[in-house]
Amino acid sequence: MPPAHPFDDDKLKEECGIFGVVGVTDAANFVALGLHALQHRGQEAGGIVSYHPDHGFNSARRFGYVRDNFTSQKLMETLPGDLAIGHVRYSTAGSKGQTQIRDVQPFFGEFSMGGAAIAHNGNITNAEALRRELIDRGSIFQSSSDSECIIHLMARSLQRNIPERMEDALRRVEGAFSVVAMTRTKLIGVRDPLGVRPLVLGRIGDGWALSSETCALDIIGAEYVREIDPGEMVVITADKGVESIRPFRPQKSRFCIFEHVYFSRPDSIIGDRSVYETRRQIGVELAREAPVEADLVCPVPDSGTPAAIGYAHESGIPYGMGIIRNQYMGRTFIEPTEQIRNMGVRLKLNVNRALIKGKRVILVDDSVVRGTTSRKIKEMILDAGAAEVHFRIASPPTAWPCFYGVDTPQREKLLAATMSEEEMRDHLGVDSLKFISLDGLYRAVGEASGRDARSPQYCDACFSGEYPVKPSDMVEKGFQMKAAE
Amino acid sequence: MPPAHPFDDDKLKEECGIFGVVGVTDAANFVALGLHALQHRGQEAGGIVSYHPDHGFNSARRFGYVRDNFTSQKLMETLPGDLAIGHVRYSTAGSKGQTQIRDVQPFFGEFSMGGAAIAHNGNITNAEALRRELIDRGSIFQSSSDSECIIHLMARSLQRNIPERMEDALRRVEGAFSVVAMTRTKLIGVRDPLGVRPLVLGRIGDGWALSSETCALDIIGAEYVREIDPGEMVVITADKGVESIRPFRPQKSRFCIFEHVYFSRPDSIIGDRSVYETRRQIGVELAREAPVEADLVCPVPDSGTPAAIGYAHESGIPYGMGIIRNQYMGRTFIEPTEQIRNMGVRLKLNVNRALIKGKRVILVDDSVVRGTTSRKIKEMILDAGAAEVHFRIASPPTAWPCFYGVDTPQREKLLAATMSEEEMRDHLGVDSLKFISLDGLYRAVGEASGRDARSPQYCDACFSGEYPVKPSDMVEKGFQMKAAE
Amino acid sequence: MPPAHPFDDDKLKEECGIFGVVGVTDAANFVALGLHALQHRGQEAGGIVSYHPDHGFNSARRFGYVRDNFTSQKLMETLPGDLAIGHVRYSTAGSKGQTQIRDVQPFFGEFSMGGAAIAHNGNITNAEALRRELIDRGSIFQSSSDSECIIHLMARSLQRNIPERMEDALRRVEGAFSVVAMTRTKLIGVRDPLGVRPLVLGRIGDGWALSSETCALDIIGAEYVREIDPGEMVVITADKGVESIRPFRPQKSRFCIFEHVYFSRPDSIIGDRSVYETRRQIGVELAREAPVEADLVCPVPDSGTPAAIGYAHESGIPYGMGIIRNQYMGRTFIEPTEQIRNMGVRLKLNVNRALIKGKRVILVDDSVVRGTTSRKIKEMILDAGAAEVHFRIASPPTAWPCFYGVDTPQREKLLAATMSEEEMRDHLGVDSLKFISLDGLYRAVGEASGRDARSPQYCDACFSGEYPVKPSDMVEKGFQMKAAE
Amino acid sequence: MPPAHPFDDDKLKEECGIFGVVGVTDAANFVALGLHALQHRGQEAGGIVSYHPDHGFNSARRFGYVRDNFTSQKLMETLPGDLAIGHVRYSTAGSKGQTQIRDVQPFFGEFSMGGAAIAHNGNITNAEALRRELIDRGSIFQSSSDSECIIHLMARSLQRNIPERMEDALRRVEGAFSVVAMTRTKLIGVRDPLGVRPLVLGRIGDGWALSSETCALDIIGAEYVREIDPGEMVVITADKGVESIRPFRPQKSRFCIFEHVYFSRPDSIIGDRSVYETRRQIGVELAREAPVEADLVCPVPDSGTPAAIGYAHESGIPYGMGIIRNQYMGRTFIEPTEQIRNMGVRLKLNVNRALIKGKRVILVDDSVVRGTTSRKIKEMILDAGAAEVHFRIASPPTAWPCFYGVDTPQREKLLAATMSEEEMRDHLGVDSLKFISLDGLYRAVGEASGRDARSPQYCDACFSGEYPVKPSDMVEKGFQMKAAE
Repeated sequence: MPPAHPFDDDKLKEECGIFGVVGVTDAANFVALGLHALQHRGQEAGGIVSYHPDHGFNSARRFGYVRDNFTSQKLMETLPGDLAIGHVRYSTAGSKGQTQIRDVQPFFGEFSMGGAAIAHNGNITNAEALRRELIDRGSIFQSSSDSECIIHLMARSLQRNIPERMEDALRRVEGAFSVVAMTRTKLIGVRDPLGVRPLVLGRIGDGWALSSETCALDIIGAEYVREIDPGEMVVITADKGVESIRPFRPQKSRFCIFEHVYFSRPDSIIGDRSVYETRRQIGVELAREAPVEADLVCPVPDSGTPAAIGYAHESGIPYGMGIIRNQYMGRTFIEPTEQIRNMGVRLKLNVNRALIKGKRVILVDDSVVRGTTSRKIKEMILDAGAAEVHFRIASPPTAWPCFYGVDTPQREKLLAATMSEEEMRDHLGVDSLKFISLDGLYRAVGEASGRDARSPQYCDACFSGEYPVKPSDMVEKGFQMKAAE
Repeated sequence: MPPAHPFDDDKLKEECGIFGVVGVTDAANFVALGLHALQHRGQEAGGIVSYHPDHGFNSARRFGYVRDNFTSQKLMETLPGDLAIGHVRYSTAGSKGQTQIRDVQPFFGEFSMGGAAIAHNGNITNAEALRRELIDRGSIFQSSSDSECIIHLMARSLQRNIPERMEDALRRVEGAFSVVAMTRTKLIGVRDPLGVRPLVLGRIGDGWALSSETCALDIIGAEYVREIDPGEMVVITADKGVESIRPFRPQKSRFCIFEHVYFSRPDSIIGDRSVYETRRQIGVELAREAPVEADLVCPVPDSGTPAAIGYAHESGIPYGMGIIRNQYMGRTFIEPTEQIRNMGVRLKLNVNRALIKGKRVILVDDSVVRGTTSRKIKEMILDAGAAEVHFRIASPPTAWPCFYGVDTPQREKLLAATMSEEEMRDHLGVDSLKFISLDGLYRAVGEASGRDARSPQYCDACFSGEYPVKPSDMVEKGFQMKAAE
Repeated sequence: MPPAHPFDDDKLKEECGIFGVVGVTDAANFVALGLHALQHRGQEAGGIVSYHPDHGFNSARRFGYVRDNFTSQKLMETLPGDLAIGHVRYSTAGSKGQTQIRDVQPFFGEFSMGGAAIAHNGNITNAEALRRELIDRGSIFQSSSDSECIIHLMARSLQRNIPERMEDALRRVEGAFSVVAMTRTKLIGVRDPLGVRPLVLGRIGDGWALSSETCALDIIGAEYVREIDPGEMVVITADKGVESIRPFRPQKSRFCIFEHVYFSRPDSIIGDRSVYETRRQIGVELAREAPVEADLVCPVPDSGTPAAIGYAHESGIPYGMGIIRNQYMGRTFIEPTEQIRNMGVRLKLNVNRALIKGKRVILVDDSVVRGTTSRKIKEMILDAGAAEVHFRIASPPTAWPCFYGVDTPQREKLLAATMSEEEMRDHLGVDSLKFISLDGLYRAVGEASGRDARSPQYCDACFSGEYPVKPSDMVEKGFQMKAAE
Repeated sequence: MPPAHPFDDDKLKEECGIFGVVGVTDAANFVALGLHALQHRGQEAGGIVSYHPDHGFNSARRFGYVRDNFTSQKLMETLPGDLAIGHVRYSTAGSKGQTQIRDVQPFFGEFSMGGAAIAHNGNITNAEALRRELIDRGSIFQSSSDSECIIHLMARSLQRNIPERMEDALRRVEGAFSVVAMTRTKLIGVRDPLGVRPLVLGRIGDGWALSSETCALDIIGAEYVREIDPGEMVVITADKGVESIRPFRPQKSRFCIFEHVYFSRPDSIIGDRSVYETRRQIGVELAREAPVEADLVCPVPDSGTPAAIGYAHESGIPYGMGIIRNQYMGRTFIEPTEQIRNMGVRLKLNVNRALIKGKRVILVDDSVVRGTTSRKIKEMILDAGAAEVHFRIASPPTAWPCFYGVDTPQREKLLAATMSEEEMRDHLGVDSLKFISLDGLYRAVGEASGRDARSPQYCDACFSGEYPVKPSDMVEKGFQMKAAE
């Protein structure tokens, strides 16, 4: 359980993926497959709740990969019914130290009108204040998760049915959240008013599915119908289908632009754009903004690959796999040896020496967070005899932490928070280092005229420091927001 | 333990990887890292034996990945010493049904002059005859592994030291084998007279390493020195270094050509050739031999990627990732649900629909064995709206089973054993299907004038049916060899 | 986890043991030892909560024996601090089907003035009504345990400190309960107004202990101080010692008489009486009330042994071990074979044939519940060649279920609920069957003039059907109380 | 796996129990039950081998109790067939440090005429010399067990069938051994020429059973037929029944007298004597030899109980349970806390204070080995307020180690090897200490005129130092035998 991450602490980490289905036999099996397709959004633990009229609500929560837990006949037989939701998680805000199994979603609550389960992707930025208020009123918290607030708020609502109690609860909540929930008959999906985190609707046979991304609809053979709108709540039953409700005051949407850059799978579709194609286009923009003479364009696998293909295509410089990824590398170790701890990225990546030797190499990576991995990769490339190393980064400098459901280091650990591009280049010891511009990124995601500085089309707080929702718990704890200009 | 393989039964499977080091502190840690880098050669189980003057021989054998077992402080502390060898395995010839932990190598034997451990990559083609003979003489076998014969032959040798006993034993053995072995002071490596399976020598600090492939030298920071020659035995001690012995009658070498095509990792070097570059070159040859008009060259990940890059480069058709691989997919399940069993390749691969739609797609794969996966991939591509699907295969038709340490289906299960190229194309339902020619493959591995039909430079029995060593156990059981022409 | 009980379903089962200490280093270790000594009160699961100023509250809950879980260095290091409480359980009222780990006590709640943990022996007879009320007011229940009500009642109390909140909560609770609880500084003990379940106070060094029985004080070397009084609450701190509070209206005490007969360990002291001596005295009374000519007095091990010694002594008939107990028998199996399921009592007991053969045997057992085990023992004795079999039972006929924290079958399953003594004798097929009279039992526990029928000194509802607290949840569900005479 | 024994290091430990059946459906289930009944003979590990014509030989070996392993449907289904043997073990001679699962019997060997499995109770006193010889001839040993020699000797025999090969092998073996073995059709039992270790024959339905003790026949409902004679080999088939062979030169029998005193279960029958009755009679003899004025006769549970009953009966002093045993105490811990390690006997035994207080107590125990437990018990009794403590021991002073299959400390650790009776009394700090005389013990086992000093009827080497078989491996290592008188 206590995971040691010998590398990969140099990426931002999406904290959750959510999935739900209604109106299909053995719904939990579909949820398991959906969560497997969303595993990149959270690898620490997963949970599924199902409902069957004869067996009531059942749940299973496990540490580890979906494929190692939710594939066994024996476990899945304990999750019968036509309605189920599930969750994969990386870690929640607010947890100190080690995650407990009781922190793993979905959460379940028994209300006087019946039970409900809820799973949540995002982060509630006023969770601590809410928790204090609820405890004062007599609620007993079982977990350290911010999501448990929602269940307790629902328990105290004066409304007579569960969807209305959920509306009540979510109106007290600040932050970014996409929610899937279920009662005995209803599958419910909600996105926060800004629509920061994704949530899509799919059709499978006579039933319906909700998912963080479209790639999870593909795996179960569901048809992609549409995105849930920012601020929309859908209440879905097997017989009456999808009912749409707007519980919040309308606002201009601010979808997370980093979903395009890194979080979402390349085979997913966001809006009507292919994530793969967006990333390839980022590479094209980057080749225009930051050209350099070289012999080889080489991705840092696997997340840098589409941008590298785009860069190579636009620049005309040959594309090649200069770094090979070990397919048998997992993410964590239980009490590893000292040697394993020190191996870092070499456990996962090896240089294709014969290809690299003597070449001027352009390395294309998705982002630079702490810069630790970038340094090690550069060293490996130089050890293998590269003549020059040029880094091209498919996102702008990550200078601000995310408080909307992404695991980011404290601001002072972010390389771009303390260094200029030139300082970073020297720090990494490469021949050149270029990030795509914020405008270039907006162009790649389809905003032909770039970023609208007065009213940005996306949430890009990690690059710009402009937070669309005030992170009030963090501000209370002393986080210094960017001064208004 | 009972592995269900929902896909990947459509590849040939290397059965083993071997690794050993002498003259380094905590040798077993290095072996664990080496085996991790060789995990692609065998995922079912692994074992390590180490020797320490104060603690004697110690061993650990485990089912599952190296990274899940041989990374823990607690286990590795039980394997002290400066000398260690290890093994990863897929499955051995001769095992009926389920593998037992006692079948997992290295094997250990106590002789009157001390103990020895031995690990082996390959297959002994006269193992059953040897086993019968040894049992008649009073040997007690503990495993169903062909490799245990070597230990018993050594126990009965009249020689006075272990390396000479090993020479005695290996002279009675037929087939393909690369061996690493150890006594209390010596690390020993041997390749069979034809050199069918690989074995390389590396230098690490003041010590030495033996490995199936160079990529495992890279991970521990060892320098690649040279290949062990076909028919060579090396006896290595920390103080005296490498002694070379030639225990067998010299023969012309017949290295396994499929190591170039699929088994070895692309970042390994065989002889003086980069495996990645060879595979890219296969793509180039394939583009020349079998051009087609199309919009996109798309690899079947991950093994088809280098050839696809080569094909795209040579043909000028854009390269793109039309199929996305789920990184969290392992290979096996314990008692999976029916649904999981039926998912097959969709658990691992998803189509990048937005990229594929409306395009004429060239899919580049490394090989076609049973054809089951190829069919499913074709269906996924067509479902996603591809206009045409053209398969290009980076190896000749696999028409004969391998008896030299590779897990192949029975001959009648091999698609190419019963169908012509046209029949296969119709069976797979694709617009065109082309395999690289045997001569083209030989050119790609550096034989400018192609295959020498009278005295082939490689073992290519899986394509040609010409077996350089008679598979005598199999022939005895009724296997029909190709009629002499 | 799913326990199969192949035998022993023929005993009443105490549902819980509780233990707590304050003012000693590594308090959790003492709690583990105490729970080990109380294991006979509950074998299904156990839990410990400890508090350390630097590490806060920590808890561990496990299925299985204390000795298999709470003895390991590794686990116990996670439970630091000078203050800890613990619980062993058999099963709780209200749980349908399988126990979940979340049902295992102690329960923990975070209040605005800090956290508290609570463990409970007994049963809350109005738990279901309380639960409905609390859910209506917005409480979220995590377990199916009746004990969780106490935590939620505390959360809603308007009092400013935890002991007063506990008083508030317990005044709403009906039934039988002994409670140990803890805050960050206080160890708290409470017995219900009737004092149905036991709770004793001990002194250990400069610290204090609370325990269900004195045998658990012995194991940690604590000195027995006194019983907690019925209706008393003690609040203990390391520095100020024991403060005594009386939160309830005074009532005449009604201690459970079956604690003397069976539940408590023979080496415990209840009040100022040795349990062993009481049981021996029951045998003496039984020999006087129900003499019979015979050759051998033989206990049904182990619970019948003291009464058999008393019977033999009083009657002058030799005492002998006619039935031998297998020491390696545990209580439960995971998915046992059919044969194991059918073995029943023979897995645990064997007849000492040589001793029994040809003898007239008096078998002394503590109680008859369903009578299933008694029948099997009788058959074993006759198979071994006994000339006669006379059963003498150290308790009156068990004709009514217990609702105060004891696992009893439904009334219709109790042999004595549907049969007279003669009918039971015929049903069991023995030569004679005699139970001790209720008056004889009262004399054995020290009430010289027997039972005071108008105001019984003990709770003997299982024999008399006179329930000192109305079991309101059960009555609501249709349980028929004894008609007033 | 690494067992810590916090107490009980103060008993001699039988090293093994063996059991086999032929001619019954699901034979392995019967073996599991038999081994459960023999668990007192070995608690570290157990193994079962079965044979089924369609499934061949199957085996399972596990650390821990029979009841925790060999009761599950899932495991037992892997052991089909009508013929099976099994083994429970404490530890084998010759194993250094920790037992490996490969050391757990039965051992299996594949011979040219088919396979055979063998399990063994006792100790081969020339095992090391045999092992050296066999390794010189080319045998590969897999375990550190002395029993493996038998299999290798059999493999080298020139005989044509397995029973004759076993005769050949056992004639080369010195020491004490009872063996059960099996081929594809035969169940085989052998006792060494002196008959040191027990082995009995039973009839079950149309089949047959072999067992270390009769109590294991009882549990499966088998009828006790007779003992296997010293030096007898029985070969049993389902259809032809029992064939008796005498492979050894006849010798006068020397059964282990300690089986009567401690090893065997009290409900077993040895020869035609009840073990319980023998032990009771030892108590009677002890009361005659070593009377003392006292108020209470109290057994050290459980092994001292029958002798205490006999002592109380003969002396007329009341019998009482002054020491209570915790039924939930197992024998071993995995990495226990310091506190657990120091608890020793208090984890298992508690004093019945109310009974002991102020009394002159006679404690009856079966033996004194190191004396460590006796000291702790004495302290507990005195702490509880006993007026006097008198130890009466149901065996003579244990002054010599056993080399015939019993785990004994080295001679210098045996209290009686270095101290006289008076010195032991002072060392233990008791008011008196008396051991039964060797002649008294012989009388209790039925030898009316006591021990025949010139030709003792039993092996009593642990008391007398007269070893009926020279322990040659030990003598070679320097063990000093008693000087001839």
